[in-house]
Amino acid sequence: MRSYLLTSCLGAVAFLAVGAANANEELIKLSQNPGDWAMPAGNYANTRFSTLKQIDTGNVRKLQVAWTFSTGVLRGHEGAPLVIGDVMYVHSPFPNVVYALDLNNDGKILWKYEPKQDPNVIPVMCCDTVNRGVSYADGKIFLYQADATLVALNAKDGSVVWTAKNGDPSKGETGTSAPHVIKDKVIVGISGGEFGVRGSVTAYDIKTGQKVWRGYSMGPDSDTLIDPEKTTSLGKPVGADSSTKTWEGDQWKIGGGATWGWYSYDPQLNLMYYGSGNPSTWNPKQRPGDNKWSMTIWARDVDTGAVKWVYQMTPHDEWDFDGVNEMILAEQNIGGKQVKTLVHFDRNGFAYTLDRTNGELLVAEKYDPKVNWATKVDMNKSSPTYGRPLVVPQYSTEHNGEDVNSKGICPAALGSKDEQPAAFSPETGLYYVPTNHVCMDYEPFKVSYTAGQPYVGATLSMYPPPGENNMGNFIAWDARTGKIVWSIPEQFSVWSGALATAGNVVFYGTLEGYLKAVDAKTGKELYKFKTPSGIIGNVMTYEHGNKQYVAVLSGVGGWAGIGLAAGLTKPNEGLGAVGGYAALKNYTALGGQLTVFALPGRE
Amino acid sequence: MRSYLLTSCLGAVAFLAVGAANANEELIKLSQNPGDWAMPAGNYANTRFSTLKQIDTGNVRKLQVAWTFSTGVLRGHEGAPLVIGDVMYVHSPFPNVVYALDLNNDGKILWKYEPKQDPNVIPVMCCDTVNRGVSYADGKIFLYQADATLVALNAKDGSVVWTAKNGDPSKGETGTSAPHVIKDKVIVGISGGEFGVRGSVTAYDIKTGQKVWRGYSMGPDSDTLIDPEKTTSLGKPVGADSSTKTWEGDQWKIGGGATWGWYSYDPQLNLMYYGSGNPSTWNPKQRPGDNKWSMTIWARDVDTGAVKWVYQMTPHDEWDFDGVNEMILAEQNIGGKQVKTLVHFDRNGFAYTLDRTNGELLVAEKYDPKVNWATKVDMNKSSPTYGRPLVVPQYSTEHNGEDVNSKGICPAALGSKDEQPAAFSPETGLYYVPTNHVCMDYEPFKVSYTAGQPYVGATLSMYPPPGENNMGNFIAWDARTGKIVWSIPEQFSVWSGALATAGNVVFYGTLEGYLKAVDAKTGKELYKFKTPSGIIGNVMTYEHGNKQYVAVLSGVGGWAGIGLAAGLTKPNEGLGAVGGYAALKNYTALGGQLTVFALPGRE
Repeated sequence: MRSYLLTSCLGAVAFLAVGAANANEELIKLSQNPGDWAMPAGNYANTRFSTLKQIDTGNVRKLQVAWTFSTGVLRGHEGAPLVIGDVMYVHSPFPNVVYALDLNNDGKILWKYEPKQDPNVIPVMCCDTVNRGVSYADGKIFLYQADATLVALNAKDGSVVWTAKNGDPSKGETGTSAPHVIKDKVIVGISGGEFGVRGSVTAYDIKTGQKVWRGYSMGPDSDTLIDPEKTTSLGKPVGADSSTKTWEGDQWKIGGGATWGWYSYDPQLNLMYYGSGNPSTWNPKQRPGDNKWSMTIWARDVDTGAVKWVYQMTPHDEWDFDGVNEMILAEQNIGGKQVKTLVHFDRNGFAYTLDRTNGELLVAEKYDPKVNWATKVDMNKSSPTYGRPLVVPQYSTEHNGEDVNSKGICPAALGSKDEQPAAFSPETGLYYVPTNHVCMDYEPFKVSYTAGQPYVGATLSMYPPPGENNMGNFIAWDARTGKIVWSIPEQFSVWSGALATAGNVVFYGTLEGYLKAVDAKTGKELYKFKTPSGIIGNVMTYEHGNKQYVAVLSGVGGWAGIGLAAGLTKPNEGLGAVGGYAALKNYTALGGQLTVFALPGRE
Repeated sequence: MRSYLLTSCLGAVAFLAVGAANANEELIKLSQNPGDWAMPAGNYANTRFSTLKQIDTGNVRKLQVAWTFSTGVLRGHEGAPLVIGDVMYVHSPFPNVVYALDLNNDGKILWKYEPKQDPNVIPVMCCDTVNRGVSYADGKIFLYQADATLVALNAKDGSVVWTAKNGDPSKGETGTSAPHVIKDKVIVGISGGEFGVRGSVTAYDIKTGQKVWRGYSMGPDSDTLIDPEKTTSLGKPVGADSSTKTWEGDQWKIGGGATWGWYSYDPQLNLMYYGSGNPSTWNPKQRPGDNKWSMTIWARDVDTGAVKWVYQMTPHDEWDFDGVNEMILAEQNIGGKQVKTLVHFDRNGFAYTLDRTNGELLVAEKYDPKVNWATKVDMNKSSPTYGRPLVVPQYSTEHNGEDVNSKGICPAALGSKDEQPAAFSPETGLYYVPTNHVCMDYEPFKVSYTAGQPYVGATLSMYPPPGENNMGNFIAWDARTGKIVWSIPEQFSVWSGALATAGNVVFYGTLEGYLKAVDAKTGKELYKFKTPSGIIGNVMTYEHGNKQYVAVLSGVGGWAGIGLAAGLTKPNEGLGAVGGYAALKNYTALGGQLTVFALPGRE
């Protein structure tokens, strides 16, 4: 088995000697081998489901810590390590250290890469100095640095193969997301929606680092790679200038629509799926129009970047309900029909089920009953507002106007879910979703654009829904019907990515630092363990020496933990999160650690 | 049981409502309760022995991690937490954060104290920004900050009760050691032997923070609190001006003799025992004479500071063989006689057994066979060099002269052991010693004194003994005979403090980050676990809910790990340690975590 792995006689360093043309095939093979965790989400479908089942509902209570590793970096640790053969690749927040660890030797450091970056990038990172992980293909590890430099490292020794500058931090453009390798390309987005960047996704050749294509979130069709006739939205061609005509003047040039989520890919359709973020500024009064294509689900051809379809979830955003959250691909029977679904849990509190072949909207339901800014998404195909959320005027910050504090909006700006990715189990047919259960007061104000300066234009405060104490829930969701199957309350937002396994165990982490394992069918808690620091990393699993391991990065931070991470204490700081999550300091302190779990017994 | 503990109805916060006059009695009681770990060393005798035996040689292999905690601070974590009732007190290196953690709730943070200190103290800390822990008495937690401020905190809420300024960082005076509470006094020393400080120990009233007495390591008898007639050395009165007459002119005023070790105390004799460090500068040519009382074991009356006896181990130091290492008190049968012994493993590579009632030298033998700078300690009472090491001219840096590189001296400046404390088991009668197995080249050069600037005057490089790879050994030592009973080679210096238990298990940590458990009788390895970062903390144990726990701080650093901790890369930096320990970067990265172990099963 694993005959495609060449293991050096020095041991431990496994790499793949295949051509770039086969990178896609190589990655698909690796992602099908449950022993590896070769992509940020485990597979192209972004299901974060593993067929490993040595750890199951019957024995998970016996789980124990096998080994641990400190990254040497504090602040928020999002993302997850990769495992390719005998090597684990671990990343850190800024300064974005990458370690290759020897799984045959309790994580001995095979190599370490630490980029030299201008620390001036830190102040233009809105929501902690996070990085969501590295990608692998073609014998290379791809790291997307905070300073928006994409670097390809030799997976054997960490040496730099090539670098590509994808953005300019002096304009507020930064890198926080994991790069995604699809076919012979490595694809990255951009962060900086709070600084008036113009979002884009860009594909680079994995061999050379040469730019192949770039598709912007907004602007002329030539920039967005939208075809007025062929690109559809809810089944209809979008028409010419579909983006620019929804903006006033040149505002689209600083229009946001950042692209820092988890991308998925359907090899059969050759389409990649991702979401674009909030329009800039957050003050809706300053940017009339639908602000397309911010807040949009995108389907792009991977070879050319050409847009197959788009669906804007939150036209003319008034709450910072970024659309960047991941798209999870599966096949599901909906209304008696087998559908290639795309499921997306949006910041705006609605969970969307679409037909990913054509962008048809199938289900759009609230996945937190407290969501109040819109009554529903209009599902009436003959309605002029078909596919749009029906906004409640009381919670419309545009309607209430500048310098008016709109109170009691649910969810808060960080959404019913943020970047923390959900998982899908084909065995239960359910989605496991780490959620925020947070409301806000939101006061827009006029702001001027200056390159590299915050372009937010709103003051926020966040808090749990009135009368409740829990700021998060971990839920199981049926995307066929749009219903919550079970829900586990958590004191704080669940800012960790979920993992589902064939052992019918679902894992997630909490901001207090617990790794928890629950029954996939019932949500019953089966195991918990207090890791060194709050968890905002994503749980992953791999097999080594016939033993299943579960691993997660601890390191409190991210938007929810920005108060702790950056030492902020004023309640409105951190885009409103500092006050809301102030109690977190009673549970955990900064850290940066990997904890690896396994069942007892010999390898 | 534990009827002397008042537990608040809010739970978790246990404190002791006893008068200051009883602090000593209170601490002795607490130290006799194996459930608590109430002093830095577990008890006044500095044995680091626990009578707990739930974890034993038969089951220790089943040990697993119960919970963990990140301190939020990187760099070297020396020392150990305290446990008093239901609360654990954890400290960190600079900025010297103290946490009170709730043992009933997986280490929930009851309170946190973070002093505000001028970061300019960092450059005057020779050997990482370490702190060796807090002390408890009379409802207060005592912290000795890096800036040499001693602070008393209310153990219930972390509020400041009093502070006392014990030194001046602008002169190179810093605090790194744990305070020691004895009777109604809290006693601290001073660090800064590399900056020409004049060492002292100072006693403060635990109620008020008022200074009670101070005894200097050098200077007039009125400063040292030496009585020319009553204070003895090797059985004889030391005579008048015993210190000043061994220095040229006023050199004693910048003469070193720092006092940053672990102090012990004999309640029956009312004597405290500690060691003084190197004379300043390291260049021996610049300071003729024996440089008394640097490099000395001290016995002082706790009430007055009066000196009962002294013994200078390394007169006129030429190698930085500080005498600060701990004094371990026990009763042992030596030559058919029951003796109140004091055992001390000195940096100079000799292990000393003395009668602590009078300072009589009983045994002085090398505890690393590679020690070569002296052939032996002269044990001939009628010899004029009685009690002195017989120095080998080849390894005498004074003899070889300034600007001459004396090569191949063993041990290196950091000694056959440094601050990492040994343990003693009364059940085996053996001492368990974490050692360095390192040699050096040493080149003295002329240096001028400037307050607050390094006053070292030597360039060093360190390396394992020629032909060997292991830079450390963990040994069992028979102090009655002065012989190694067993020895476990370790790749790096064992810079973690040892713990011995009645389960006949001995614990220690390694610079790679392993916690190891070995059989007290045979040294056989029974368990190991890779913690997040290199261990230079001291292993401790406690009982909670009828379950025995073992805990240790990870966080690589200290002198041995200074290259990693401070990001130094030139081999001669870090007083010679950077090059010697360069390979450490292949095993671990910076961290700051507590790992708590227990056997599986319910509480």
